[in-house]
Amino acid sequence: MMHIDEARVLASLRRLATFGAEGRGVSRPALSAADMAARRWLAEEMAGAGLEPTLDAVGNLYGRQPNVTQALLLGSHADSVPNGGWLDGALGVIYGIEVARAWRQAYPDAATGIDVIAFSDEEGRFLSCLGSRSFCDRLSPAEFDALVNNNPSLSTSITAAALPTQPFLRLDPARHLAYLEAHIEQGPKLDNAGLDIGVVTGIAGMRRFQVSFAGQADHAGTTPMDVRRDAGMAAFAFATQCHERFLGLVGSETVWNMGALSLKPGVTNVVPAFAELTVEVRDLQQERIDMLGEALLTLARECDGRQGVTTAVQIQSDLAPLAMDAHLRDIIESQAIACGASYRALPSGAFHDAMLVAQRIPTAMLFIPSIGGRSHSPDEDSAEAQIKTGARVFASAAAVISRAQPALGVST
Amino acid sequence: MMHIDEARVLASLRRLATFGAEGRGVSRPALSAADMAARRWLAEEMAGAGLEPTLDAVGNLYGRQPNVTQALLLGSHADSVPNGGWLDGALGVIYGIEVARAWRQAYPDAATGIDVIAFSDEEGRFLSCLGSRSFCDRLSPAEFDALVNNNPSLSTSITAAALPTQPFLRLDPARHLAYLEAHIEQGPKLDNAGLDIGVVTGIAGMRRFQVSFAGQADHAGTTPMDVRRDAGMAAFAFATQCHERFLGLVGSETVWNMGALSLKPGVTNVVPAFAELTVEVRDLQQERIDMLGEALLTLARECDGRQGVTTAVQIQSDLAPLAMDAHLRDIIESQAIACGASYRALPSGAFHDAMLVAQRIPTAMLFIPSIGGRSHSPDEDSAEAQIKTGARVFASAAAVISRAQPALGVST
Repeated sequence: MMHIDEARVLASLRRLATFGAEGRGVSRPALSAADMAARRWLAEEMAGAGLEPTLDAVGNLYGRQPNVTQALLLGSHADSVPNGGWLDGALGVIYGIEVARAWRQAYPDAATGIDVIAFSDEEGRFLSCLGSRSFCDRLSPAEFDALVNNNPSLSTSITAAALPTQPFLRLDPARHLAYLEAHIEQGPKLDNAGLDIGVVTGIAGMRRFQVSFAGQADHAGTTPMDVRRDAGMAAFAFATQCHERFLGLVGSETVWNMGALSLKPGVTNVVPAFAELTVEVRDLQQERIDMLGEALLTLARECDGRQGVTTAVQIQSDLAPLAMDAHLRDIIESQAIACGASYRALPSGAFHDAMLVAQRIPTAMLFIPSIGGRSHSPDEDSAEAQIKTGARVFASAAAVISRAQPALGVST
Repeated sequence: MMHIDEARVLASLRRLATFGAEGRGVSRPALSAADMAARRWLAEEMAGAGLEPTLDAVGNLYGRQPNVTQALLLGSHADSVPNGGWLDGALGVIYGIEVARAWRQAYPDAATGIDVIAFSDEEGRFLSCLGSRSFCDRLSPAEFDALVNNNPSLSTSITAAALPTQPFLRLDPARHLAYLEAHIEQGPKLDNAGLDIGVVTGIAGMRRFQVSFAGQADHAGTTPMDVRRDAGMAAFAFATQCHERFLGLVGSETVWNMGALSLKPGVTNVVPAFAELTVEVRDLQQERIDMLGEALLTLARECDGRQGVTTAVQIQSDLAPLAMDAHLRDIIESQAIACGASYRALPSGAFHDAMLVAQRIPTAMLFIPSIGGRSHSPDEDSAEAQIKTGARVFASAAAVISRAQPALGVST
């Protein structure tokens, strides 16, 4: 019988939060001094849990269980956004190390082991999911070198972090039979419903549009209203109409955001010559993303040329929704029941490293509640009891999966 | 009979445009190396025209005609916006020096002289109309010192420019009987109508509102639409509705601008927590500014609290409209007719140093056409013929005013 130490999980999370501590939260951007100090400490923790830690050329920290040829991979990321919370990423890494330790102690001779990974730069200081992209063969060493050469800040950070030039650690489908990631929900659904566990059905896809408006800069005091080509007003009207059309098209599962708008020259007394608006649309169903995308393009065509302002749309990013492995989801559900934890199935509106790994091996995610749904903020928090409950369910699921291996490996 | 050299006016304008030349335009921000080099050259020109030049502690360059106790003051500013045009400000200074030269040559023994001033920082690199504020006693030496102490860039610029710590030159109502400023229109009215001269009726007043929207930052992928407190969408809707209400309230003379909008955190994947929108309203009639101001405040009250976003309005700046001196306007009109120039009366939608001076002594402005109404841009230009026509009308008006002195001094 495997035993995890819930008190140690909490203590480890508190300790990890001291690296880059800022008020109640943390600032631990990828490859910063705080991030590297945290990774050095995590490497010691991995070693203490019986794993062999390796830091790779992009900052991934990988703890490998010796003397096994197959392993369940657990983990998440160790970096944070600037002025972020203490649990985002950290939870999955600390759960992973605790479960790997417990597994080795309980089953030292098992054929299947448990490896742990703390991915680099999930939050995109340099590139969103940099670590898992590299680990999953979605970023070649040459592409990484190009990234470094084009980004002096990344280059400087790599030197300061004393990252090795080799190895680039890679997922090994012959060894890594499945991936399990625990994370805070980063949304309010579990907290609002008073539930302990979220069994993630899939990760929402996202299409990001950049809508550009080109008019003409003019003096705001001397140019009559009727001859202005005001790119700002065009952008405001577009955003408002786009929002209204989206509301009329889709239900409550679909979300969108217009989080960035820039005006040029952007000063009070000049009519805006240019405006750029980003619109992100997310859903678990590709069809709904396509439908909203069509609506946006239609509106942009209607607006183009109005009042002398040209409107253009560019797709900046387009990620398909990704379902989690059904068999692994069933195991998490059954272990929630076994542990007496309440749960629901729910989609992940946020990205995770799991999105990369899921394209290679069977993958699933477990959420615990975020108080008030807050994240990417020092206010991010989860109740201690729910951190503990999450650890128990996660450990049980990992144990069931590991005992079921290698049969599981053929389920995809 | 006074004679001005129109070819020298053009040559001087072209020479002044070499200081800070950038493409077809100029970058001559106040107290920059280019601005100071221009002022040193202008001081020589003033001396050549028989004036005694003095550079004051804020960068104003003042050319004083010796041996007279009263003088008509002519001028404008010598600085430009970054990447600005070659005539904005420069025109009025060069006209002034040419007219002062011609006046001295024609009437060396006249009791009334002509002084010339090139104001500092009309464009507000450090403070809008810094030079004319100081000259017109609207900025005390102590307030200027405070400005310098709070702005390292201003402090550095003053040292680099080798500005004297004294004097702070001041308008002297006993000497300065009236002020006349020539300027490009910076709008399209004269150019569209094919007219030579604009006789400025007044300078539009302006009220600048900062409208703030406070919501909550949330993850754009995980937060359902119906619980978001999206400050960005609130700002976009406010701007659109405000624009529509304004359009329904006023006629074609009133203008407004929403030139700056900032979102925080302003990233694609976070629901905006804060938005700030500036709205500038300008008109020659205070009543219309008040009416639009009321409409804006009413809308803000209606919006406040909608979808969890609080809306607040702050008045950042409030400048009353200012009429030009009627007697001086009549003289400009009569001299336009005498010179065979076409003209119309029109308001100035832009600010000018004249706005400060007009609060102290009789003041008027003369505009020449801007091609396509362009200004604050390298595209800013006026036809040579119209620069020459403007110089003739301006010189004639200055001569009539100077001959009429000191009787004019009592007209206010």
